[in-house]
Amino acid sequence: MEHMLDVLFNHRSIRKYKEKPLTEEQIHTIVEAAQHASTSSYYQAYSIIGVTDQQLKKELAGISGQSYVEHNSHLFVFCADLRRLFLKANEKTREKMMENLQNTEHFIVATVDAALAAQNAAIAAESMELGICYIGSLRNNIAKVDELLELPEFVIPLFGMTVGYPDHNPEQKPRLPMKAIYFENKYEDNDAILEAELNEFNKRLEAYYQSRSENNRSDTFTDQVQRKLSNPIRMDVTNFVKKKGYNQK
Amino acid sequence: MEHMLDVLFNHRSIRKYKEKPLTEEQIHTIVEAAQHASTSSYYQAYSIIGVTDQQLKKELAGISGQSYVEHNSHLFVFCADLRRLFLKANEKTREKMMENLQNTEHFIVATVDAALAAQNAAIAAESMELGICYIGSLRNNIAKVDELLELPEFVIPLFGMTVGYPDHNPEQKPRLPMKAIYFENKYEDNDAILEAELNEFNKRLEAYYQSRSENNRSDTFTDQVQRKLSNPIRMDVTNFVKKKGYNQK
Repeated sequence: MEHMLDVLFNHRSIRKYKEKPLTEEQIHTIVEAAQHASTSSYYQAYSIIGVTDQQLKKELAGISGQSYVEHNSHLFVFCADLRRLFLKANEKTREKMMENLQNTEHFIVATVDAALAAQNAAIAAESMELGICYIGSLRNNIAKVDELLELPEFVIPLFGMTVGYPDHNPEQKPRLPMKAIYFENKYEDNDAILEAELNEFNKRLEAYYQSRSENNRSDTFTDQVQRKLSNPIRMDVTNFVKKKGYNQK
Repeated sequence: MEHMLDVLFNHRSIRKYKEKPLTEEQIHTIVEAAQHASTSSYYQAYSIIGVTDQQLKKELAGISGQSYVEHNSHLFVFCADLRRLFLKANEKTREKMMENLQNTEHFIVATVDAALAAQNAAIAAESMELGICYIGSLRNNIAKVDELLELPEFVIPLFGMTVGYPDHNPEQKPRLPMKAIYFENKYEDNDAILEAELNEFNKRLEAYYQSRSENNRSDTFTDQVQRKLSNPIRMDVTNFVKKKGYNQK
């Protein structure tokens, strides 16, 4: 099954799509593939909203600041969702369940479940020669996305995913050297080694940024992450998550 | 690329493996596939520990309560890891970055990044005709796993994954009906419809549990989730996550 690994190894995020919607069958295949992912304790603790309303897409694009959130073949929003699990429980059982559902443990469960499903959706789409891009920037205004999609308690919009027919062919972005992220038996406890790997990666990335065909610039990995993380962003997410019922105690 | 979708649609968790380790090349391919997944803001905010030490595997199996955590061809532990991002920052920059890193927003970033990488690893393994099983039960004693793997601050063991040559052929477990998890433009706001879908699924699952070849029993979806979630588990995860630096404000 050479093809399968090719799909995984050829991934790049696609941010320009041809104007051609997905068929119902394509959408069905992508969502069904998502459902086949592993799920913690069989909870299937996520929901997926397919956005077809053009005005709604426009509003979500405004929140994310990305025009391709409006212009694509299909837009999915992946949500953590523990609500389904207590929907049929009586009041007494529901009360007992809340002790767990409000714990960070179950915030992890729902977030991981949604992400595993999403990555299966991404691979399914890419195996059908479609392109995808994850849209974390929906969390620029998570409360507004929540309101627009009318999400009830214990349902949180984690990220979007645009899908469509690629209309550009971006270079593949380098990844950290494997030895910086993969360790045997225990975490690499020698920071000098990790730093040397980051230095090496910085040089490689600098060359990539200077040579790439779209949006070339001078930058390194550690410079860009330090710059990005030095300005507080999405500080409302903490309280939003709690307000929805998660991550409270 | 028919094969590709077949791999996604044929997934089942494998809990019995032949006694045959993975080659270095197989491990390399799986980890490299993981690294090719999408990553939020290019942070690559995860680390993977490959566990080869048999004594360590035994201890982790004890925590999870699953013998196949000890007996498999390879064991991975996927960790949220924002530490790499501030490793080279000076004290002043690091202080500024903490405002973000301690927010729930960046706990989501690292958890989702780790999960996307893991699902790519799973698909890569399955495409090489290996079987996998996610091991969320490492969180039965997350602090002990953390200690055994010597994880520093801002590195959290989220879940394990066993990989190996399948030594059983379990039936595929049914999934919720698509209309219970996929909605258009807004969340399904009619609880009677959702409840009817859960009732239908309960009947289907009851038949599955009664007919399957291994470990058959009488149970439904809503019964099992209500039962499981009525007893508090892993209540220490909330404070553990905070203690590691995440999810604080």
